[in-house]
Amino acid sequence: MFDIKNEVLEAEKRIRSHVRETPLDYSVALSRATKTNVFLKCENLQYTGAFKVRGAINKLLSLSPSQREQGVVTASSGNHGAAVAFGLTTLKISGIVFVPEYVSPTKVDNIQNYNVSLEIYGADWIQTENHAIEYAKQHNMIYVSPYNDLQVISGQGTIGLELTNQLEPIDVILVPIGGGGLISGIAGYLKSVSSKTKIIGCLPENSPVMAESIKSGRIIDMETLPTLSDATAGGIEPGSITFEICQKFVDHYILVSEEEIKNAIISLIKTQHLLIEGASGVALAALMKNAQQFQGKNVVVILSGANISLETLKMILG
Amino acid sequence: MFDIKNEVLEAEKRIRSHVRETPLDYSVALSRATKTNVFLKCENLQYTGAFKVRGAINKLLSLSPSQREQGVVTASSGNHGAAVAFGLTTLKISGIVFVPEYVSPTKVDNIQNYNVSLEIYGADWIQTENHAIEYAKQHNMIYVSPYNDLQVISGQGTIGLELTNQLEPIDVILVPIGGGGLISGIAGYLKSVSSKTKIIGCLPENSPVMAESIKSGRIIDMETLPTLSDATAGGIEPGSITFEICQKFVDHYILVSEEEIKNAIISLIKTQHLLIEGASGVALAALMKNAQQFQGKNVVVILSGANISLETLKMILG
Repeated sequence: MFDIKNEVLEAEKRIRSHVRETPLDYSVALSRATKTNVFLKCENLQYTGAFKVRGAINKLLSLSPSQREQGVVTASSGNHGAAVAFGLTTLKISGIVFVPEYVSPTKVDNIQNYNVSLEIYGADWIQTENHAIEYAKQHNMIYVSPYNDLQVISGQGTIGLELTNQLEPIDVILVPIGGGGLISGIAGYLKSVSSKTKIIGCLPENSPVMAESIKSGRIIDMETLPTLSDATAGGIEPGSITFEICQKFVDHYILVSEEEIKNAIISLIKTQHLLIEGASGVALAALMKNAQQFQGKNVVVILSGANISLETLKMILG
Repeated sequence: MFDIKNEVLEAEKRIRSHVRETPLDYSVALSRATKTNVFLKCENLQYTGAFKVRGAINKLLSLSPSQREQGVVTASSGNHGAAVAFGLTTLKISGIVFVPEYVSPTKVDNIQNYNVSLEIYGADWIQTENHAIEYAKQHNMIYVSPYNDLQVISGQGTIGLELTNQLEPIDVILVPIGGGGLISGIAGYLKSVSSKTKIIGCLPENSPVMAESIKSGRIIDMETLPTLSDATAGGIEPGSITFEICQKFVDHYILVSEEEIKNAIISLIKTQHLLIEGASGVALAALMKNAQQFQGKNVVVILSGANISLETLKMILG
């Protein structure tokens, strides 16, 4: 198994000047409502509006000079694309970001803030990802996976390191899961330094691929439905290293409905005056639904990103 | 005249452990749209969701032990009340917050997050303020003005100090004005250390009391209309020291319409995925309306607070 703790410590040194130490906000109102001590890890306030910049910049900084010359290809439902674009612009590397057809316009805008080529390909996430991998091979470029990469995972794991400096003890941590890069980094680090912390993976009922895969003992290919949590939607690349990391370190999974995600987003607007995207709402909804299990505990909710589109926000509030 | 620079340096030492150094975010999208370099000073991310905590805690920390014993009275349209409540709870002082009848429910909730008495009084801001002053006298308590107080002003001025560590040069700074406490602190500090910085006061057309007072050469009592910028609405206490500070240090005033405030709030949701309240929208709207004057310049926009109610947000997006 990978030594994630050590990789995270290396990532920390590499990326610190490029990322923001995001606040861990205690919420008076949510703590009162749930009878737990709620701490919000505000990656919605990270550069580019999502945690993804940690993993992307760690990967790019790990490339050799000749790999940098080759240029970079990635596939993304939005946030990882903006993160790679941010990193490429910062480090003056050229690259292409492939996004699926269902990408939200706000995420396209986010990517186009930076100097990078953007191409739309594939009605389905796995199509986009396979196309990007193939494109990289054909053009002898470096493919940067949004989750199936130890450097990407270790970059995301720096959130765990920050948390241990911000709160003690961390009894429970709720993390949204798509491909599993975020939870792999956080869980891999935390389980090595704070073994009592319960790690809970949070997924939309409409796209619970990792939870179902863990149940089946292997990465499964399943039909998924559209979800407010576009950032965690879709399938997982066969052979992804995140699968075995989740198997080893994630204690429990919670699935939430679209209605619950929506209510979580609204409740954060009301209590904290913060905008979050669907994936963050998944983690908060998982807490609100299961608060009884966690009474009196210090609970960290990972708000993974802010990048909700105006159209989606209107629909939710409408 | 007051030595604001020195008072701000004292405030800085006093309050640093109680306030957050808020990010100064460069906005790619707004910079592109305005052809200026837009930097957002995110006091919307300050504790309690507004800058007011700086001045309130500075004032409370300046009280003598016997003054603390007397207890504290304040009047507030919301944010200052939450800031005083936060400070009273932190420092274990008792107190009462008076709010006007038109206070937004979200701001009442914000105040009630803390251990403090809240009372509703007055259809009009000046009524609420006078009542609170009278109440403090009758009960031998300490009145803490939301703006007409050198300690409060100096606390807000620590924003200016943070800014000089975050950006150089600051060509232009846009600040919302109600009673004038925020701009007095920032301008008083900046003009002493960065005399070329242009200080621009931003007000809603519906409640431009300070701008009209400056024009008249004295604090005037005028009819005002409701505005999305509830935090800057209403009159100014006769004799307020903010008047002469504004006369001396503010270079220019810009008024904006309700429609312009609304569009500024929407554009920040779209580009930065941040929620701001009306007063912050006033400063951003003033930039968007006058961008041509500032082309190529480093422009700081003070996002003074986040505390927009869900109802107002729905109305704006509806």
